[in-house]
Amino acid sequence: MSDIQIAQENEAKEMQPITTIAEKIGLQSADLEQYGPYKAKINFAAIKRLKEQPDGKLVLVTSINPTPAGEGKSTVTVGLGDALRQLDQAAIIALREPSLGPVMGMKGGATGGGYAQVVPMEDINLHFTGDMHALTAAVNTLAALIDNHIQQGNVLNIDPRRIIWKRGLDINDRALRQVVIGLGGPVQGVPRQDGFDITVASELMAILCLATDINDLKQRISQIVIGYTYDRQPITVAQLEVTGAIAMLLKDALKPNLVQTLEHTPALIHGGPFANIAHGCNSVLATQAALKLGDIAITEAGFGADLGAEKFLDIKVPQLGKTPDAIVIVATVRALKYNGGMPLADLTTENLGTLEKGFSNLAKHITNMQRYGVPVVVAINEFTTDTDAEITLLQEKCAAMNVKAILTSVWAHGGQGGIDLAHAVLAALEQPQDFHPLYDPKTNIKAKLTTIVTEIYGGHDVVFEGKAINQLKEIEQNGWDHLPICVAKTQYSLSDDPKALGAPTGFTVHVRELLPKLGAGFIVAMTGTVLTMPGLPKQPAALKMDVTEDGLISGLF
Amino acid sequence: MSDIQIAQENEAKEMQPITTIAEKIGLQSADLEQYGPYKAKINFAAIKRLKEQPDGKLVLVTSINPTPAGEGKSTVTVGLGDALRQLDQAAIIALREPSLGPVMGMKGGATGGGYAQVVPMEDINLHFTGDMHALTAAVNTLAALIDNHIQQGNVLNIDPRRIIWKRGLDINDRALRQVVIGLGGPVQGVPRQDGFDITVASELMAILCLATDINDLKQRISQIVIGYTYDRQPITVAQLEVTGAIAMLLKDALKPNLVQTLEHTPALIHGGPFANIAHGCNSVLATQAALKLGDIAITEAGFGADLGAEKFLDIKVPQLGKTPDAIVIVATVRALKYNGGMPLADLTTENLGTLEKGFSNLAKHITNMQRYGVPVVVAINEFTTDTDAEITLLQEKCAAMNVKAILTSVWAHGGQGGIDLAHAVLAALEQPQDFHPLYDPKTNIKAKLTTIVTEIYGGHDVVFEGKAINQLKEIEQNGWDHLPICVAKTQYSLSDDPKALGAPTGFTVHVRELLPKLGAGFIVAMTGTVLTMPGLPKQPAALKMDVTEDGLISGLF
Repeated sequence: MSDIQIAQENEAKEMQPITTIAEKIGLQSADLEQYGPYKAKINFAAIKRLKEQPDGKLVLVTSINPTPAGEGKSTVTVGLGDALRQLDQAAIIALREPSLGPVMGMKGGATGGGYAQVVPMEDINLHFTGDMHALTAAVNTLAALIDNHIQQGNVLNIDPRRIIWKRGLDINDRALRQVVIGLGGPVQGVPRQDGFDITVASELMAILCLATDINDLKQRISQIVIGYTYDRQPITVAQLEVTGAIAMLLKDALKPNLVQTLEHTPALIHGGPFANIAHGCNSVLATQAALKLGDIAITEAGFGADLGAEKFLDIKVPQLGKTPDAIVIVATVRALKYNGGMPLADLTTENLGTLEKGFSNLAKHITNMQRYGVPVVVAINEFTTDTDAEITLLQEKCAAMNVKAILTSVWAHGGQGGIDLAHAVLAALEQPQDFHPLYDPKTNIKAKLTTIVTEIYGGHDVVFEGKAINQLKEIEQNGWDHLPICVAKTQYSLSDDPKALGAPTGFTVHVRELLPKLGAGFIVAMTGTVLTMPGLPKQPAALKMDVTEDGLISGLF
Repeated sequence: MSDIQIAQENEAKEMQPITTIAEKIGLQSADLEQYGPYKAKINFAAIKRLKEQPDGKLVLVTSINPTPAGEGKSTVTVGLGDALRQLDQAAIIALREPSLGPVMGMKGGATGGGYAQVVPMEDINLHFTGDMHALTAAVNTLAALIDNHIQQGNVLNIDPRRIIWKRGLDINDRALRQVVIGLGGPVQGVPRQDGFDITVASELMAILCLATDINDLKQRISQIVIGYTYDRQPITVAQLEVTGAIAMLLKDALKPNLVQTLEHTPALIHGGPFANIAHGCNSVLATQAALKLGDIAITEAGFGADLGAEKFLDIKVPQLGKTPDAIVIVATVRALKYNGGMPLADLTTENLGTLEKGFSNLAKHITNMQRYGVPVVVAINEFTTDTDAEITLLQEKCAAMNVKAILTSVWAHGGQGGIDLAHAVLAALEQPQDFHPLYDPKTNIKAKLTTIVTEIYGGHDVVFEGKAINQLKEIEQNGWDHLPICVAKTQYSLSDDPKALGAPTGFTVHVRELLPKLGAGFIVAMTGTVLTMPGLPKQPAALKMDVTEDGLISGLF
């Protein structure tokens, strides 16, 4: 059965009213804004009240460098939450919201899989509670206000060639990557080069995920640098005087969304910044709510531990005010063989040699996560093609590093398939932890980047190229170099070369652009060719989608 | 007090749970999908069940040619509903949803005004239940799929120069009217000229408002012509094989939204096609639901009666399967003086001469509406600057045409200010009616347009210019000339010249483009310079908007 079939069969039979889920974690219906019977936002009054509560424990789920299909990080996160609930632990899951673009393209949904899913999966994968759409509206309203300012006299002296605020759509649309707008003569605006990012790559998404309340949201929005004047001075949203309007468009999107897993574990699904261009974690508000409402909050960070987890630990943690008590690294036998150099088409064949070779990738991520001073557990996400010999080899290699590698089968068995993992995580939560961040943000940009490249990626050096050289000077001149770094990088390798699998060493990372994100509060370092607007494949998933007369959806997966 | 202040004060004190509103009209909570405590969608099962019920009476509210500020048509519609409820009539209101673009620009909200508003006004004016956003996603997903088809080999042989499907945003953004997309080389797509319409001007919005169920929605989507091949053959969504995906994105948007007025009258707010480029009426499904759930359904059509009402009567009525039992024409003393040639700045000064001159506009609309065989009532929407002499003159002029002109003050007094109007409407509903449409759709395009121009607009002739000449041939060759006409025209004049106020005669209407909308089921005739993407003014309303820490909004009006 496909994920949607499993979801639909179970939704029909078994979903509990969202008020019932809320009651489990001490929320009353007055704390909720319901969106149908199975979805709700937690309102500001409840969030304010929760701030007084003590924090539970925090578990961060991350992974090795993935194959293009992904390694089931969300699925393991959901399954772990369900397993902990089966062990009578008050666990709450906090995940990112799916972006519609990849849903229509190749990736399909992002709500877990099999019997470890959050539901209603169709709603969550499509419009959900409208957060993505509100962001798209805000992103483009700001863009329209910028171009209108220029058209109506340009009092702020904005240089149309130096606008860095891009438009956005929550769609995979390569044709919008580079566009020319404002054509048609003086009444139609000022012609200039522009581009659209996918909404989840926008700074506003990062801001929504880092803001701690509406005032902080407004403060961050006001600081966004949208471009520069003809004499190279930065222009902010505050100067455009539209902070209030943009914040107003996001006031509901800022509230965390509550849903449930197939096993009725409470799940907060909120915010979804891209993990390559942005910081790849769900919202601070949702993770905080999970910490306040449960004894154990389980959250994930996008792509491999070199991207999502590093950003979680160095960018999100300072806003969250809470460090992880345990880190779970999801690995699959197939992805390790892929990292060992095996072609995608052969991954279903047993091959202990390439598995051993590819283990270097997992080993590096284990070392990296341990470096932060947090106990680590490896979750082996089982595939039917894994052989006993492969699993045993993988477990032995981890044991040699003093790390438990637990076989999990949550896709096939839900929480029951994650019981061993849950026990290992509970044991890890009892271990001492001594969190220390990777770098001091006060050091300069080059120093911070060098630390990330040498300590986490295993590389040798970092060089600034092309635009990045002047941008570095500009950032220093503007006094922005105290901000943490958000590296935009391929998810397929520890390096900036998607073909360098395993655990490459000795490489140099090439930074070609440095983008100041003053609202989000970080500097994006663009390496390699990171796309901020994906394209659709030759046979998009959209071709197979349908809806019946009664509103039942098919073709989501 | 401003509209938003009145709304917020009353919302806090007095809004009833939407389930209470639903109960008044015989709906159970199982018939609803709630969006917070005060908004709900009516689900498909309930809509299906309602089809068996008999229809109530139908009242259409339209207006004279407006000033740029509008003449309070929605306000009168809401006030009339409230007044009928005060008279113990089971009245239900059916209005269009506001578009976010004009909200951020100049127009402000579109939820009535003063004490005749639908609430929660902030939600309805912003994201509401996500219908506009779902449409925006669907419009742009289709566009991305078209460009991706071309990029990936173009099996259908689509000519990139002849794509007529445009992208869309629910934003006033003149810089997107004419753009070039797909720049950057072979990996970024095929460069071509394109443009964005405001979402409410998209054919998908018209389709949503004319579809009678999901199957009809899918049928209409499949018929959309997105462009032409290199050998000039039309290409439809069906050929792209993405009908299901686009319909899936709209499945929830198709369900009517239930809210309430400040006086707790049930109101269905659903769909909002532009009345210049599209047909300007709320959805068939919402109007049908209002007819089934109440004894009197009150609905409106956009802009003046030459645009919205003509399209309601000739395009929507055949899909609705119900003709109006009475038509209310909203007039204001100020707009009639404007039509009499008085400058906008002077409209607050008494001037019986220009009022008498401008009355020609109202007279023409009365004649036009009577021509359809439906009883007509005039509602004078009172402004504090109106003088007794002006009101008396206006009422006398109407009486001379055997039409009652009723002074209404619903902005200031809510339903109480519309009691006289309600009595007049109830009397009109008792009169015999003998509906006959304006034209037979089977006649050719030129004949249909000539009928509209001569009989409704008061003009002399219609000429096809430029692109329209070839497009007419193409439409005939493709066998599409049996479709009704949807004229895109200025709202400020009965003619195609926005400066020709009052009741001009002898003019020729110039059709410069003919756009086939096979999904909506009409041919758009573009006259004059009708903008399908508005721009923002020098001081957009956005500059004054804000939101407090607790989520309270200000600056919407």
